[in-house]
Amino acid sequence: MKLATLSDGSRDGQLVVVARDLKSAQVADRIAPTLQAALDDWAFIAPQLIELSQQLNAGRGHRSFDFDPAKCMAPLPRAFQWVDGSAYVNHVELVRKARKADMPESFWEDPLMYQGGSDDFLGPMDDIVLAHEEWGIDFEAEVAVITGDVPMGSTPDQAHQHIRLLMLANDVSLRNLIPAELAKGFGFLQSKPATSFSPVAVTPDELGDAWLGGKVHLPLRSTWNGKLVGQPHAGTDMVFNFPQLIAHLCKSRNARAGSVIGSGTVSNKDAGRGYSCIAEKRCLEMIADGIASTPFMLFGDTINIEMLDSAGKSIFGAIAQTVKQAVARKLR
Amino acid sequence: MKLATLSDGSRDGQLVVVARDLKSAQVADRIAPTLQAALDDWAFIAPQLIELSQQLNAGRGHRSFDFDPAKCMAPLPRAFQWVDGSAYVNHVELVRKARKADMPESFWEDPLMYQGGSDDFLGPMDDIVLAHEEWGIDFEAEVAVITGDVPMGSTPDQAHQHIRLLMLANDVSLRNLIPAELAKGFGFLQSKPATSFSPVAVTPDELGDAWLGGKVHLPLRSTWNGKLVGQPHAGTDMVFNFPQLIAHLCKSRNARAGSVIGSGTVSNKDAGRGYSCIAEKRCLEMIADGIASTPFMLFGDTINIEMLDSAGKSIFGAIAQTVKQAVARKLR
Repeated sequence: MKLATLSDGSRDGQLVVVARDLKSAQVADRIAPTLQAALDDWAFIAPQLIELSQQLNAGRGHRSFDFDPAKCMAPLPRAFQWVDGSAYVNHVELVRKARKADMPESFWEDPLMYQGGSDDFLGPMDDIVLAHEEWGIDFEAEVAVITGDVPMGSTPDQAHQHIRLLMLANDVSLRNLIPAELAKGFGFLQSKPATSFSPVAVTPDELGDAWLGGKVHLPLRSTWNGKLVGQPHAGTDMVFNFPQLIAHLCKSRNARAGSVIGSGTVSNKDAGRGYSCIAEKRCLEMIADGIASTPFMLFGDTINIEMLDSAGKSIFGAIAQTVKQAVARKLR
Repeated sequence: MKLATLSDGSRDGQLVVVARDLKSAQVADRIAPTLQAALDDWAFIAPQLIELSQQLNAGRGHRSFDFDPAKCMAPLPRAFQWVDGSAYVNHVELVRKARKADMPESFWEDPLMYQGGSDDFLGPMDDIVLAHEEWGIDFEAEVAVITGDVPMGSTPDQAHQHIRLLMLANDVSLRNLIPAELAKGFGFLQSKPATSFSPVAVTPDELGDAWLGGKVHLPLRSTWNGKLVGQPHAGTDMVFNFPQLIAHLCKSRNARAGSVIGSGTVSNKDAGRGYSCIAEKRCLEMIADGIASTPFMLFGDTINIEMLDSAGKSIFGAIAQTVKQAVARKLR
């Protein structure tokens, strides 16, 4: 089943079921008005949405219409939780190596995760609006899951059962704000602006054999200003799978329905697969040449993030965003 | 106006208006079913709630009933954002001094804030359920605000206009998990379990003269196992006021309606005012004696956090919690 949220002027948008080929959609409002409402009562709601989905995929949808990703909000336009892992430890190791810092061995066994802001997610084609290029604007292409209720103390196997949906994320980062902020010791705040998500969230079964062992075994494609810059394999070099990330989060607290957990920047040890964030490219340059030559994003830059199945079809639709300069806000 | 959320079996509870004396309440369901719904459309909803509140305070409430804090969830049982500041820099300085680390001078000018989990808040009388005493269970008594929509780039003066409600918070902390987690550099995750809030959230006008300059000028009382251990003045030594904390948060992103921003542990330079968290007491012991002698909380311990007005009346009702051991979860 594929689900999306269409903009209708409300804060949480309108839940729709989307056909597997992403060509048509159908409103689910007699079942659940919003994706959060569906997640809140998933055992009861999901079977009804699945039935609608089957009808739509069989070409028997009632009042179905053309699916337009430009009308999409994030599948959850606002969520009660967003936690992002750094499951591709290769990425972390490269960043450290570039600044000549050792990475603790424990990073291979103890997941690095940060709590992010979830009150204002961006839709897949929303502009990335920021005040200053000097902040070092970067994209981060990731896979993310949405969970049901996960009780405190759950094991990875238990957590696995609570994974409801998968999607793609662009965890926009402000690289030049990060060092000072992390030096303060309390994690990211200003250096992580609003995160964007793919048009569509899908149930794990939509991935077929590519969903295995709590990982997505497909390449994640990042196209920056029209040029393919990365296609690392999301199933390779993922040191912690999603169930492990969720269990880590739930050691001392519950995660409630609608929690979004990110994989962290997808990164392969094989540098030939390219990069999912500019910082990684710059780290490779630092290590090779002593100087980072690739600049961060500029106003007007575009970023496209997409995942294709083995037949070359888009699974989640594309994140396709443009960086824009914030205009000075009028006083009220 | 005073507002609370009663448990009714739903995730977001039932919004009620509470009388100023906290003795009676009235359901607001013909106006807004939940506090989040009220915040989402505050300009339209608040005047209707205020009218109800005025009737209730005048003894003319319809179908009003006795207000029972034991039936309260957190005013927002789940929120889209929880960010906690460390506005009482004295507290930060003490913690650093105890571990013989210098505090950067910038901490007096640049607020320290962390993004917390907001998907699973505790009600004022909910047990603090945790697996291990060895985690170093501590309370943290704080003041918190709930905002409306605050646009990215807002100044403190602009942010001030978007403060909708105030409440008290118990930002439960697991002290023995903090050092390893902060050493990883990505902030708190496992070391900050679910946060608790006072029974009632109030509009700033309910504080009268005590709400001045974006600070609450009243003592915050913490009673641990029946003994008053702290009554620091929340208006004293607060280096960053709430508008400044909100503006800091909004440098690179919007904060959407229902964002909860905490003050951090209330702490005065005058140690005679006692403490709002055990860690601070232990720091003072470390500095004086070289050893921390006061233990953290044990299973069965109680913590009561309350703020009284100048006439000795409770403003927000009391946070009154007991620490309990988590029982091993049954497999499904």
